[in-house]
Amino acid sequence: MQLTPPLPPPGPIRLFVTGGTFDKEYDELRGTLYFKDTHLPEMLRLGRCRLEVSIRTLMMVDSLEITDADRSVIVQNCRHCHERRIVITHGTDTMVETARALAADVRDKTIVLTGAMIPWAFGSSDGLFNLGSALSFVQSLPAGVYIAMNGRYFNWQKVRKNRETGVFEEIP
Amino acid sequence: MQLTPPLPPPGPIRLFVTGGTFDKEYDELRGTLYFKDTHLPEMLRLGRCRLEVSIRTLMMVDSLEITDADRSVIVQNCRHCHERRIVITHGTDTMVETARALAADVRDKTIVLTGAMIPWAFGSSDGLFNLGSALSFVQSLPAGVYIAMNGRYFNWQKVRKNRETGVFEEIP
Amino acid sequence: MQLTPPLPPPGPIRLFVTGGTFDKEYDELRGTLYFKDTHLPEMLRLGRCRLEVSIRTLMMVDSLEITDADRSVIVQNCRHCHERRIVITHGTDTMVETARALAADVRDKTIVLTGAMIPWAFGSSDGLFNLGSALSFVQSLPAGVYIAMNGRYFNWQKVRKNRETGVFEEIP
Amino acid sequence: MQLTPPLPPPGPIRLFVTGGTFDKEYDELRGTLYFKDTHLPEMLRLGRCRLEVSIRTLMMVDSLEITDADRSVIVQNCRHCHERRIVITHGTDTMVETARALAADVRDKTIVLTGAMIPWAFGSSDGLFNLGSALSFVQSLPAGVYIAMNGRYFNWQKVRKNRETGVFEEIP
Repeated sequence: MQLTPPLPPPGPIRLFVTGGTFDKEYDELRGTLYFKDTHLPEMLRLGRCRLEVSIRTLMMVDSLEITDADRSVIVQNCRHCHERRIVITHGTDTMVETARALAADVRDKTIVLTGAMIPWAFGSSDGLFNLGSALSFVQSLPAGVYIAMNGRYFNWQKVRKNRETGVFEEIP
Repeated sequence: MQLTPPLPPPGPIRLFVTGGTFDKEYDELRGTLYFKDTHLPEMLRLGRCRLEVSIRTLMMVDSLEITDADRSVIVQNCRHCHERRIVITHGTDTMVETARALAADVRDKTIVLTGAMIPWAFGSSDGLFNLGSALSFVQSLPAGVYIAMNGRYFNWQKVRKNRETGVFEEIP
Repeated sequence: MQLTPPLPPPGPIRLFVTGGTFDKEYDELRGTLYFKDTHLPEMLRLGRCRLEVSIRTLMMVDSLEITDADRSVIVQNCRHCHERRIVITHGTDTMVETARALAADVRDKTIVLTGAMIPWAFGSSDGLFNLGSALSFVQSLPAGVYIAMNGRYFNWQKVRKNRETGVFEEIP
Repeated sequence: MQLTPPLPPPGPIRLFVTGGTFDKEYDELRGTLYFKDTHLPEMLRLGRCRLEVSIRTLMMVDSLEITDADRSVIVQNCRHCHERRIVITHGTDTMVETARALAADVRDKTIVLTGAMIPWAFGSSDGLFNLGSALSFVQSLPAGVYIAMNGRYFNWQKVRKNRETGVFEEIP
C-alpha cells in the first residue's frame, strides 16, 4: 500500500552548462587545463538517461572568473526558458553566489546547481554521480534554488563550500 | 523568494546490496564474469558522498537467480531496519518482481531500487549515475517503492524493463 | 658515444586480430561477454602510435575455440602478407599452440603474439601495456616467433601460461 | 625453424622517475595540476609486469623546469646504478636535452626515455602504452640512448618533438 499519491510526471528539463571543473580538459600541447566542448551529452548517454533534457551551453569558464554580467546571462536564461525544471553545471567555487542571484530573480521554478571536484575527462571524476543526483532532485523537489553536491541537496541560503575540505556544508 | 517550505532533513539511509550487474567482475583466470565484493563503498567515495549511509550486503547474485526465499530476506531486512529511507542495488531483470514483494509488505518507508546495465568494474558503467540518482530520489520522494533507472523514477506498479532495448518504461 | 650502429628502420608492421580477451565486450542485454568489433584502432590512437601499421581481423573468437583450420588461416596470412614484422592479438589460453604452428611454417619474419588478461573495454585492462610492448619487440627482435606478455618476450618454444596464476613463464 | 639465436635474458631493469605529464594529478582543492607520488608501481601492476624492475624517484617536476643541476643528478644516477638497462620517465618538452646529456656521459648501457602526452590519472592516457613500449625496447636494443614515443624508438641525436603536433619525429 502506498499512502501518498504518485507525483505528477516532471516534464522537460533544461540543462544549462557554464563550464567549471566538470568540463575541464587537458591540453596536451601546453600541459594545462582548458575548456573545449561540454561533456554533458556524452555523460547523459553513459548514464542511459531517458529524460527529456535540452542542453544549452551559456559559457565555458572557471567559476572564479564568472562576472556579474555572466550571472545576469544565467539568470535571464533561467527566467525566460519555458521549462520549469532546470539543472545548471557550474564551478564549485562561486556556485553559491550564482544560486543567490537566481533566487532573487527566478520564481516558481526548481533550479538545481551542481558541479564536480574532478574533471569528467579524468577517470575518477565525481561528475557522473553528481549529474545523476542533480537530475533526480530537480524532478522531485518543489520550486526553489538548490545546490546538489556530495549526494545531498541544500537550499541556496543554507550552504557554503568548505574551501579546506572541498565539501559543501549546511550553515544554520 | 521560495514559495514552498524546505523539506526536513532526510535522516540516515540504508543501502542494501544484492549483486546484479553493478557488482559483476571479470575473472581473469577463467575469462568469465563473477561476483566478489561490492563496489558500493568505492563508488560512494568517488562520488564524494557525505550522506549518512549504512551499507549491508544481503546477497551477491544475478537477479535471474533470485528466489522467493531471497526476496523474503530482502523484504524482512527492509521491514526491520530502523532507517525509513532505503536504496537497494539489484539486477535489472527481476527488479520489478522484488519491488512488488516489497510494496506488499513494507509500509511508511521510501524504498528505491536501482541497478546498472554495465558492470562498475568496466570504465563505461552507468552505475555511478544511477547510484547518484537513487540516493537523491530516496531523500526527496514520499513513502513508497520506486525504481530509479535511466535518470527517471517509476512507481513500482507502473514500470517494466523492455528486454529488447534494456530501457525501463512506464506502463499505463 | 654510441658503440653499436643504429638499427635500420623497421618498416611496415602487420597487425592480425583474432579476438581473445583483448576484444571481449559486455552485452548489456544478455549480461554476458561477447565479441563485436576490434578495439585495436582505438588503442593505437590512444597510444598516439605513429608506426605504419595495417590491421586485419582474421577472426573474433575465444582462443579456447580456435580450431586447426583457424590456425591454418593465421599461418597462411602470416606467410603471404608482404610485411616482415607481424603482431597477432590472441587469447592467452592457446597462444603457445598458435605460436608453434607459426614457427613450423613461417620463416624470416618477426612474429609477436600478445593478448590481455582483462578486456580492453574494462577500465583496468593490461591490453594497452601489452600492445605497446608487442609493437616494440616486433621492431627490435630478430626473425622468429615470440610471445610478449607481462612486459617480457619469450621464444615460442620456451614458454607456457601458468593457468593458476595467469602469468607466462619460461620453461627450460 | 628459427635462424637467429635467442637473445640472452635482459637482466634487471632500473626505472628512474623524474615527473613529467606521466605523473601529473589534479588538485581538487585548487583546480590545478600538481605532482604527488609516482603512478609507476600502479601502472606496472596493471600491466601485470613480471620484469625485475627497481623504481627510484629522482625528482617530480615538469620537464620545462629541469635545470642543468637536475640533469646532472639524472646522469650520475644512470652512471652509478649497477643495472645496464635503464628506463627514465620524463616530461616530453626537454626529453631530448636530457638524452643528449646522458649520451655524453654514460656508456655501455641501454637507456630509454619515455613520457606521456596525457597524465596517467586521466582515463585516456597514452602512458601505459608508452611504458610497455619503453620497457620492451630497453630489453631488446643495444647500448645507447633512445627515446620511445608514439610506438617508435629514436636514437637521441635523430629526434625532436614537434611542438605543434605533439609528435616525436626523426630528423636527418
